[in-house]
Amino acid sequence: MNSEVVLSLPNPPTFDELASAESLFDSLREISRAGIGVTRESYGTSEETAIRLVEMVAERNGLQTERDDAANLFVTLPGAASDGSFVLCGSHLDSVPCGGNYDGAAGVVAGLICLCKMKSLGIAPRRTIKLVALRAEESAWFGKPCLGSSALLGRLSPEDFSLKNSVTGKTLKESMELAGAKMDRIQSSRPLIDLKRITAYFELHIEQGPVLIRDDKALAIVSAIRGNIRHSHVTCSGEAGHSGVVPRSLRHDAVLATADLLMRLDHYWEQMLKNNSDLVVTSGIIRTNTADHAITRIPGEVTFSLDIRSQREEDLEIFYDQLQSECRQIEAERGVSFQFDHKFHSRPVGLDAYWIERLAGLALKLGIVAPVIPSGAGHDAAVFAESGVPSAMIFVRNQNGSHNPHEAMEIGDFLQGAQLLYEALLDAA
Amino acid sequence: MNSEVVLSLPNPPTFDELASAESLFDSLREISRAGIGVTRESYGTSEETAIRLVEMVAERNGLQTERDDAANLFVTLPGAASDGSFVLCGSHLDSVPCGGNYDGAAGVVAGLICLCKMKSLGIAPRRTIKLVALRAEESAWFGKPCLGSSALLGRLSPEDFSLKNSVTGKTLKESMELAGAKMDRIQSSRPLIDLKRITAYFELHIEQGPVLIRDDKALAIVSAIRGNIRHSHVTCSGEAGHSGVVPRSLRHDAVLATADLLMRLDHYWEQMLKNNSDLVVTSGIIRTNTADHAITRIPGEVTFSLDIRSQREEDLEIFYDQLQSECRQIEAERGVSFQFDHKFHSRPVGLDAYWIERLAGLALKLGIVAPVIPSGAGHDAAVFAESGVPSAMIFVRNQNGSHNPHEAMEIGDFLQGAQLLYEALLDAA
Repeated sequence: MNSEVVLSLPNPPTFDELASAESLFDSLREISRAGIGVTRESYGTSEETAIRLVEMVAERNGLQTERDDAANLFVTLPGAASDGSFVLCGSHLDSVPCGGNYDGAAGVVAGLICLCKMKSLGIAPRRTIKLVALRAEESAWFGKPCLGSSALLGRLSPEDFSLKNSVTGKTLKESMELAGAKMDRIQSSRPLIDLKRITAYFELHIEQGPVLIRDDKALAIVSAIRGNIRHSHVTCSGEAGHSGVVPRSLRHDAVLATADLLMRLDHYWEQMLKNNSDLVVTSGIIRTNTADHAITRIPGEVTFSLDIRSQREEDLEIFYDQLQSECRQIEAERGVSFQFDHKFHSRPVGLDAYWIERLAGLALKLGIVAPVIPSGAGHDAAVFAESGVPSAMIFVRNQNGSHNPHEAMEIGDFLQGAQLLYEALLDAA
Repeated sequence: MNSEVVLSLPNPPTFDELASAESLFDSLREISRAGIGVTRESYGTSEETAIRLVEMVAERNGLQTERDDAANLFVTLPGAASDGSFVLCGSHLDSVPCGGNYDGAAGVVAGLICLCKMKSLGIAPRRTIKLVALRAEESAWFGKPCLGSSALLGRLSPEDFSLKNSVTGKTLKESMELAGAKMDRIQSSRPLIDLKRITAYFELHIEQGPVLIRDDKALAIVSAIRGNIRHSHVTCSGEAGHSGVVPRSLRHDAVLATADLLMRLDHYWEQMLKNNSDLVVTSGIIRTNTADHAITRIPGEVTFSLDIRSQREEDLEIFYDQLQSECRQIEAERGVSFQFDHKFHSRPVGLDAYWIERLAGLALKLGIVAPVIPSGAGHDAAVFAESGVPSAMIFVRNQNGSHNPHEAMEIGDFLQGAQLLYEALLDAA
């Protein structure tokens, strides 16, 4: 981060959406530049600078700002109704290390533009409309995602406060304190706001997959956030031996046994898709034991990760059962054994049915055909949905995936998404 | 190595084979102890100490000793014939780091016991009988095997002298010089002895695989030494992406592509064995790219090793062709690409047909049924065979494989092997 940077801020009171969006994204990139990507660490300096930038632009445009007790930023455009209810939009401002500029920030910038535009047009909504710039959504820093929204919604557990930042080594408690959070309040694990007053939560986010690119669509409405079963370390133990001298029938080769398992899972996955299941399966890390592996040694041990996701809990369970049964078969056939570490399991979260349909309808009115697709990645919206807040998401087309410096959202697609968010906020208010 | 160790040497002139063998193996272990295993580094101190031990025992038992220009040890029992021809037996005295005590040493100790016994019995053979204690057979030190026998037989190439010891960093030339080799002579790449005078070369060695254990046999006669095609690094390149968001049909998963390849090779291997091919296939090292792999990331790159061995060059070639064609198919089906590094290729070496049959016959006379099996590992005998010396090998049953501290040869099996070697030497002399 370069604190010397001269920020080029959008110039009120003439509000130009395109110029404002470009300028905001440029400034965010400028304050968090890290090599060819950006780094805005959860509860760290560049995340705080990004929040201050949003805060400053909001204030210059005549909007109210405040921090909640978890150091999240709220921007408010007051409405006429006096029941205290409000419509909320938002996303997060942190990024993965050396990530892209749009993952999270797009939702905050979109919300800010909507509120600035309403303010500049003198629109007085029926209900108050708020934007929340959340902190710490990325699990890259503390190993657990959505910490900012979880703190806001009273969903952090006592153990979470001891999680350590993988770079600084500081605990979550220390890091939140440094960022200005009121830890006594946060550690009570009660929501920081009255959840019943939030009539809807909208989150615009870049799509992190390639579906909209493939289907040539600028926007999508999100149906559900996939649940996830994950093992960090599955170990396959066989028997090491000289590569040249042990006949095939006497081998217990851990690499071949693991390849066998992965192929059986791949075939079962294919079959489940044919039966209209929703499923993605990934073994992202695999390695033989570096302590004793060799080109001329039959591999005696392999470890690998497994990540299984689905919109439907039932599909997750069917696939997981199949995994266990294939392991037992391969153990019997190849004389190896599979050991599984802790099973991480998050259930799928359905987004609000009313708003899925309503958003698709509002998009059509704008001349946009927005397909309804699931989200494979987790999002703050899932935390709101699990807390009982009617929640919805708009995906914006994005090249090159995310969690890398090559994210490439077209500003035209983004403005279409912001326009849909604008309509939705006014519709809900 | 402990230079203070008091060596317990067999006590001439009463020659007790069992006591001598046990005492020699104990002394060899004592001078090269390294944790629970032994370390006798090629052209290093503990290999030299092992050679001196053998030299000392030979001299105490009235045998002649000399070093060749490559610092190998020759022990001689002169024969009656004056044509200069001789029968040779031997093996190597180096070991892998933290290896077992018998790999190599068994053949030297067996030869020494045979010569000591002949000497103590006053046997004057027709032809001279020699034992060679070779250096530097293990590729663990300089990355290339059989350096001592290759130096003796004039088969080192100019590049070999620049090979570096993986532990000391010294070049082969420096290391050989320090061990007393005459480098001017060695670098001429001419044999140090008149090859035509060697009527036969016999090498007793522990079996490094589990076949004799499985078949409940103490000894085997070696038919051939398997050829080898090897790639240290095959890289499969696909496309990275978020594990939760990319549908199966849009993935180019390098781990699944590699698992697919390994399973196709495993099936083809099984099929070739059914058609009586000789083949072993190993992928001993596999790993995703540690620079950017993650549990939640579709793996974009995997590297793995391949080691393919067969007694028959044709089987090697058929399998290698299949490997290439499977790679092309998977590239087309999964949108990945495979890149192969340098192809190491050593051809199979057949051992002497006459001596294979003769050894089996001599074994039967001793009441031993010795099956004829291939050797998957390389041996100095292959270098003699390639140089045109009629060469044969006796395998002794050994538990727990080799190149590890847990080698476990029964002394009774060893003495049967030494007895067969004794008969073969006298038969050939």
